[in-house]
Formats: sequence, C-alpha cells, structure tokens
Amino acid sequence: MNETNIIYIGQKPIMNYVLAAGKRLAEGGSSVLIQARGRSISKAVDVALITVDRSKGEVRMGDIGISTEVLPGADGNPLNVSSIKIALKRP
Amino acid sequence: MNETNIIYIGQKPIMNYVLAAGKRLAEGGSSVLIQARGRSISKAVDVALITVDRSKGEVRMGDIGISTEVLPGADGNPLNVSSIKIALKRP
Repeated sequence: MNETNIIYIGQKPIMNYVLAAGKRLAEGGSSVLIQARGRSISKAVDVALITVDRSKGEVRMGDIGISTEVLPGADGNPLNVSSIKIALKRP
Repeated sequence: MNETNIIYIGQKPIMNYVLAAGKRLAEGGSSVLIQARGRSISKAVDVALITVDRSKGEVRMGDIGISTEVLPGADGNPLNVSSIKIALKRP
C-alpha cells in the first residue's frame, strides 16, 4: 500500500474525501484505504459507500478492519481511540 | 441469527451496550450482531472493540459489513443512511 493511497478522514465535508478517493482510483491506483479515528468513523463509512455507489461498478468494497489505537492523551495518560480502515478496490 | 441477539446502538452510554453484549454472550449466545446507523456507527465500533477486549479472549471479532439504508425522510423524500453490522463470536 503506497502512502499516497491512504485517505485520512478528518473535519472536511464528506464530498471532499469522496472526490479525493475517486480521483486516486481514476489516476491508476488499484486500491485506496479510507482511514479514520473516533467520531470520524461514521464519516469514513459514508465516504466508502458513496465512492462505491458513484463508481457505477468500477470500484468495489474491500476488507474492513477495526482496531484500538493508543494515543498520548492531553493529560499525559494514554488514550484508547477506535479506528477503522476500509479498503476500496478497482477489480 | 436470533432477533434477540442483535444489539442496536442508540443514544445510551457506550457501557450499557458493552454490558448487554457481554451478558448475551455469557448467557449462551454463540454470537451477537452490533448494529448502528449514521452517527452511532462510531459508537458501535467502540462497543465491539471494548466487548472483545473485556472478554480476555472469550469473544472474537467476526465479519464487519457496511451498507446504505434508504429511510423515509422527514420531508417525505427518501434518505440514504449508512449502517454497520459487526459480528462478535464466541469460538
């Protein structure tokens, strides 16, 4: 997985990420990985589903994985944050 | 999948759902399905990961599926809502 093919979901509007994913797949990438943490997980699912839907069969859903990441918290204590990775593939 | 083994994630605190999932699995269910729509998807991922973590190896993550559900919107127009289903299994 090339680093440029990971799309991190943050605070921007959903369609920004949908267009980014579609562009990377159209430019010859065979797959992209949609990645998000915490509250952005719901948005990552929206991005993946809309990207597949807009592709008219060109893009398929790949593996979906969830895991807990341990981040340094604001108070110095470790913070457990859920994360999701959704693979999108061009067959 | 028995209907009573589906846990729908809503507005309650995360630990309510974690305890419900753990209880159903302990009471002899071999699997539960964590289900959520829209913004509750992030919470569903938290519930699944915490339930597996608390089980000390007794419960494993199963298949994860995402899909778009079409609901009747408040204005009468159909509304697309993302949903997730996460299976938890006792091996």
